[in-house]
Amino acid sequence: MYMGRVVGSIEASQKDESLVGRKLMIVQQVNSDGEALKQEVVAADTVGAGIGEYVLLVRGAGARKTQRDNRGQHDVLDCAIVGIIDRFNK
Amino acid sequence: MYMGRVVGSIEASQKDESLVGRKLMIVQQVNSDGEALKQEVVAADTVGAGIGEYVLLVRGAGARKTQRDNRGQHDVLDCAIVGIIDRFNK
Amino acid sequence: MYMGRVVGSIEASQKDESLVGRKLMIVQQVNSDGEALKQEVVAADTVGAGIGEYVLLVRGAGARKTQRDNRGQHDVLDCAIVGIIDRFNK
Amino acid sequence: MYMGRVVGSIEASQKDESLVGRKLMIVQQVNSDGEALKQEVVAADTVGAGIGEYVLLVRGAGARKTQRDNRGQHDVLDCAIVGIIDRFNK
Amino acid sequence: MYMGRVVGSIEASQKDESLVGRKLMIVQQVNSDGEALKQEVVAADTVGAGIGEYVLLVRGAGARKTQRDNRGQHDVLDCAIVGIIDRFNK
Repeated sequence: MYMGRVVGSIEASQKDESLVGRKLMIVQQVNSDGEALKQEVVAADTVGAGIGEYVLLVRGAGARKTQRDNRGQHDVLDCAIVGIIDRFNK
Repeated sequence: MYMGRVVGSIEASQKDESLVGRKLMIVQQVNSDGEALKQEVVAADTVGAGIGEYVLLVRGAGARKTQRDNRGQHDVLDCAIVGIIDRFNK
Repeated sequence: MYMGRVVGSIEASQKDESLVGRKLMIVQQVNSDGEALKQEVVAADTVGAGIGEYVLLVRGAGARKTQRDNRGQHDVLDCAIVGIIDRFNK
Repeated sequence: MYMGRVVGSIEASQKDESLVGRKLMIVQQVNSDGEALKQEVVAADTVGAGIGEYVLLVRGAGARKTQRDNRGQHDVLDCAIVGIIDRFNK
Repeated sequence: MYMGRVVGSIEASQKDESLVGRKLMIVQQVNSDGEALKQEVVAADTVGAGIGEYVLLVRGAGARKTQRDNRGQHDVLDCAIVGIIDRFNK
């Protein structure tokens, strides 16, 4: 998994059916000291994360295996927010 | 998922059967401020995206799971355009 | 697999059910001479690794295939610590 | 998918059985203006690509799903040439 | 697949059961001119590769699909050496 910070969201009226009704958040990848990494990703929010929060990201097939938001065979999703980070213990 | 901008397309007369009839677009990966990242990818368009538009990209097995363009077991696809981005909310 | 060093852990009260009860460690990726690479990841610990230890990381579907911590179909995990490195032989 | 240029091939007498009889080409990844990216990969050719040609690369499970060269359950392949690029339209 | 050079091995007394009995080699990724890339990986050897040899690496699910070393459902492996490179033809 990866650490990120939610920096915004995406609006897309034309999209695959499996993305309809999902909140598509723009997430800046970060390290545990908050340093921003180069790449941003778009992730479906499954835990109610808000702008500015630090989150856990899952990539690949794992993103299609959440309990709350499972869409079966025709799901294109490859990135999901699966946790809100309360604290980095270091 | 990743953000990108469609910058062109590919012509390939010799290709795997699962790619026949698909529009293969050259997509420049970008961040939400439009900054271009280093790598371009080739993605099958599933939503009618045009040159210059900002799009959502899916990679890996997810690219083979769209509703509209599903080719069953023998599909080599590993990257698809699954949405047209109307707006970045930041 | 990748080499890493455990540098901390994550607290996340709100998270996917498949992550409940798992120790989520912050791991700095390293090379075999201990040189830190740019990216940190968050990995579920399956072998009892402690802070400061060098570990083996698995990514992707492999992270969902451990003997000890298998959660079936609805597991979002995409990164796990699957070994503690005692020695680099070079 | 990725764009590449075939720059050579690999000889390997000792290799996994699923690689026997396959042409293993060295491919330099490129952008659509022909700019070489840092990494080379080794890809199984499934379309008769020659040295110097621009090609389409598939990575991951997709590389094991071609029509012409399908080896069933025990196939280690994770990269294949699935098209010859005639033209970049930009 | 990727090209690499075996530079050492890992000892790990505590590890997932699917890794027991496997030779876990440290592999430096290289290009076809031998130039070292930034990242090292740890790969299970399936072809008897020795220190200093150039090898073919497979990543992801492909690493769990070799003929010789197949461990069924509970295999965490995500990287394997699947060939010894005798010659780069360029």
